[in-house]
Amino acid sequence: ELRDEILGWFGQDDALNPADFRSRGEAWEPLAGRTALVTAGPTHEPVDPVRYLGNRSSGLQGYAIASALAVLGARVTLVSGPVMLADPAGVDVVRVETGVEMERAVRTALPVDIAVCVAAVADWRIDGVSDRKIKKQAGAPPPVLTLVSNPDILAMLAAPGPERPALVVGFAAETNDVEAGAITKRARKGCDWIVANDVSTGTNVMGGQDNRVILITEDGPERWPLLAKTDLALRLAERIAAWFGTPVMATGGDRV
Amino acid sequence: ELRDEILGWFGQDDALNPADFRSRGEAWEPLAGRTALVTAGPTHEPVDPVRYLGNRSSGLQGYAIASALAVLGARVTLVSGPVMLADPAGVDVVRVETGVEMERAVRTALPVDIAVCVAAVADWRIDGVSDRKIKKQAGAPPPVLTLVSNPDILAMLAAPGPERPALVVGFAAETNDVEAGAITKRARKGCDWIVANDVSTGTNVMGGQDNRVILITEDGPERWPLLAKTDLALRLAERIAAWFGTPVMATGGDRV
Repeated sequence: ELRDEILGWFGQDDALNPADFRSRGEAWEPLAGRTALVTAGPTHEPVDPVRYLGNRSSGLQGYAIASALAVLGARVTLVSGPVMLADPAGVDVVRVETGVEMERAVRTALPVDIAVCVAAVADWRIDGVSDRKIKKQAGAPPPVLTLVSNPDILAMLAAPGPERPALVVGFAAETNDVEAGAITKRARKGCDWIVANDVSTGTNVMGGQDNRVILITEDGPERWPLLAKTDLALRLAERIAAWFGTPVMATGGDRV
Repeated sequence: ELRDEILGWFGQDDALNPADFRSRGEAWEPLAGRTALVTAGPTHEPVDPVRYLGNRSSGLQGYAIASALAVLGARVTLVSGPVMLADPAGVDVVRVETGVEMERAVRTALPVDIAVCVAAVADWRIDGVSDRKIKKQAGAPPPVLTLVSNPDILAMLAAPGPERPALVVGFAAETNDVEAGAITKRARKGCDWIVANDVSTGTNVMGGQDNRVILITEDGPERWPLLAKTDLALRLAERIAAWFGTPVMATGGDRV
């Protein structure tokens, strides 16, 4: 039933092996009393009323992490870009389209104890979105799309301040020098952990069911085996629970 | 059961009223012996391994037309961009990603008697697709995306030649001056009919279930009422059958 809970929205049943999990009993909720924010999916940055710049994120990994954190007892807000996935059970879902909308929804969700930024937010949006469909003009050269930087949600969350979550986890999708790129990204963004994966063509990570990552913490890189995205989500959620240590409400019995 | 056939892949049942249709009997197949090609969906034009330029076409209207033509007896090839729809029953589906791939698949499907170009093929693709993910560089300006024209599949099909389909129908998605734009497009492309619709924000045509169109033929514009996309598809398929007149195999009984 725990398995059902995490897999219900997922529509499948492969590779999740919550054996460790079960041995602790179904009521094991080490994140009870904690709040978490997860971002997931791509963003779509409009060019005009019909065209957009997008990316191939399916949202699966982020939805799985939101679900796993909720299963472990956290109160989770999932800010999701446009994906074809149903809302995970027990998670508050806020759906957005663009990076600017995602940043606004994230700020609204603060403060939280845990932030996990899985969304593949577009680094850039189109400068000067047209409110009319851009027409092909015979003989005229194609338009040039000028880009401007989108808000950096991970850096915003990781910046010191009264609303900084206790633990800020970023994802890095890399196609080259995955580990080195992720170590640099962790330092540059100021986040606590980076989960780095290789999204090169052929790895089938984007849109696929499995994921192989390197977790970068203050202790250095840690290579995880190839895991189903649901398994990876549970493992990450358990790591987060371990990082926090004693549950907030260890003595309480009043949490439903 | 006729209704089931056309709606089976569609997963819904609204607004289709095949009353006229039924009165002719279920075996009425005026397009028996004809071949048809339908394009549907958006194209995704890659920027790099994770990003692409896309558009908001759901593919619903094109899939409905392919299905309707097949129900009326045509042998249909559907060349589809990336959409979240199942293959319509009784239709050969070729799935592609980019405009260049779509053109190649369309050429492979020739010769046909009928071509209906519903796909929202990107007018442009990115000049110089990166085989690595483009990285955001601190302090550096955002990249500029230079576009080049994509193949014009409708114009290619409509051009005179031994493989020109007898009837070439294009779609025009407009946000302003819908009728005037469509009349101009019909002349410029050299196609026989244009089905023009208004995809302005708020019309909810893209991704929605209904569509309101103006059909432009050699006789001028004809305003159709607001119709479910499945209804519109049947009406268009019947118009196409009427244009062809006597079925090819009026005397034959050997078509299954």
